[in-house]
Amino acid sequence: MPDLTIEQLQQQLREFAAARDWDQFHSPKNLSMALIAEAAELVEHFQWLTEEQSRSLPETKRTEVEYELADIFVYLLRLADKLDVDLLKAAENKLKLNAEKYPADKVRGSAKKYTEY
Amino acid sequence: MPDLTIEQLQQQLREFAAARDWDQFHSPKNLSMALIAEAAELVEHFQWLTEEQSRSLPETKRTEVEYELADIFVYLLRLADKLDVDLLKAAENKLKLNAEKYPADKVRGSAKKYTEY
Amino acid sequence: MPDLTIEQLQQQLREFAAARDWDQFHSPKNLSMALIAEAAELVEHFQWLTEEQSRSLPETKRTEVEYELADIFVYLLRLADKLDVDLLKAAENKLKLNAEKYPADKVRGSAKKYTEY
Amino acid sequence: MPDLTIEQLQQQLREFAAARDWDQFHSPKNLSMALIAEAAELVEHFQWLTEEQSRSLPETKRTEVEYELADIFVYLLRLADKLDVDLLKAAENKLKLNAEKYPADKVRGSAKKYTEY
Repeated sequence: MPDLTIEQLQQQLREFAAARDWDQFHSPKNLSMALIAEAAELVEHFQWLTEEQSRSLPETKRTEVEYELADIFVYLLRLADKLDVDLLKAAENKLKLNAEKYPADKVRGSAKKYTEY
Repeated sequence: MPDLTIEQLQQQLREFAAARDWDQFHSPKNLSMALIAEAAELVEHFQWLTEEQSRSLPETKRTEVEYELADIFVYLLRLADKLDVDLLKAAENKLKLNAEKYPADKVRGSAKKYTEY
Repeated sequence: MPDLTIEQLQQQLREFAAARDWDQFHSPKNLSMALIAEAAELVEHFQWLTEEQSRSLPETKRTEVEYELADIFVYLLRLADKLDVDLLKAAENKLKLNAEKYPADKVRGSAKKYTEY
Repeated sequence: MPDLTIEQLQQQLREFAAARDWDQFHSPKNLSMALIAEAAELVEHFQWLTEEQSRSLPETKRTEVEYELADIFVYLLRLADKLDVDLLKAAENKLKLNAEKYPADKVRGSAKKYTEY
């Protein structure tokens, strides 16, 4: 069975909130708070791991992390819906901007974006 | 022109990082930090607004917020790719779990999930 | 009994980590992740509340929030210790900078810092 | 000159907000958002650094990080003041709880709190 599309997921979220009378809580302000709280749960999984450990998670931990990514995605979908943002198009535009901002032949090796820090 | 798919965006991100030799920086640990930093830029847009104001952003601000959503999405796509997570499927599963956890006929009105806080 | 001072708290934290052999985990990078995860637990308490509700918390919730503030403070103290920062002096300097940046007679009413958003 | 105390800093913050008519913006909800946004600026400094690099920052970067710690502390002080929390006492209580929760002779070496992740 093919995955649901972003639009279908957003439609489900809309119906889910409506059926529970939760739209009153879903202001973009509140949703941004919920999203960052989920992002922090992801961070918590990695905070005491080395980078190397984070690259090869044991399966149970990988599954927990998958749930966190899903939680973040759900709030991101909801926010995008509320603010009338096409996530795929917005990301595509962002990648174009990044390509101009960080030309490969200039940044390779130096990785200025990173080493600047 | 139709939107790129999630897979196509992830493929572009892979090539983008490879061309710049940035994979060394893109451990899941580091990407989780980058993601929460972007989520915080979203929060910053809303922190002094009322909920009502956040529901009806002026156009210039809505555009800035759109960029923040794109930034979050890009890091989420990258993390999902690195951790081999199918975001659409993970979100779909999450919605099913939520439907069981918060049955509409029980939570409507009471909004226990929220008022508990 | 008077409160412990910031230095005394930091000394206790040093001994606490040393006795458990935890210094290896307490890089500034990792501590910044732990701090933001605690900050997010604070955010979670407020995410579905109105601003008004957040101003008058029921006592049990106020106590939970107190624990979150303590958690944030503990990681902030630890980071400051690791990075050799005098928190009180740093805050004092910051307040001076803010006084220059936002002169009271200019910003009153307009609240430009806020309405700009 | 001795450092200002926490109470003196909080008193200055109170006067600072009052002189600018900013109390209306400083609900605990909003302040929690401002605090996490500052915590994220700290995270941003560390996100592409190795743990080792984060332990030995170049001086200019250490100074920038010092400002971020100050920003976090200022919002923490403000929140504690608004919610009538004694930060030093709350941290002291937290350290006592941690000592019971993680007895040194049991956790040393195993570092269960960390490796659990």
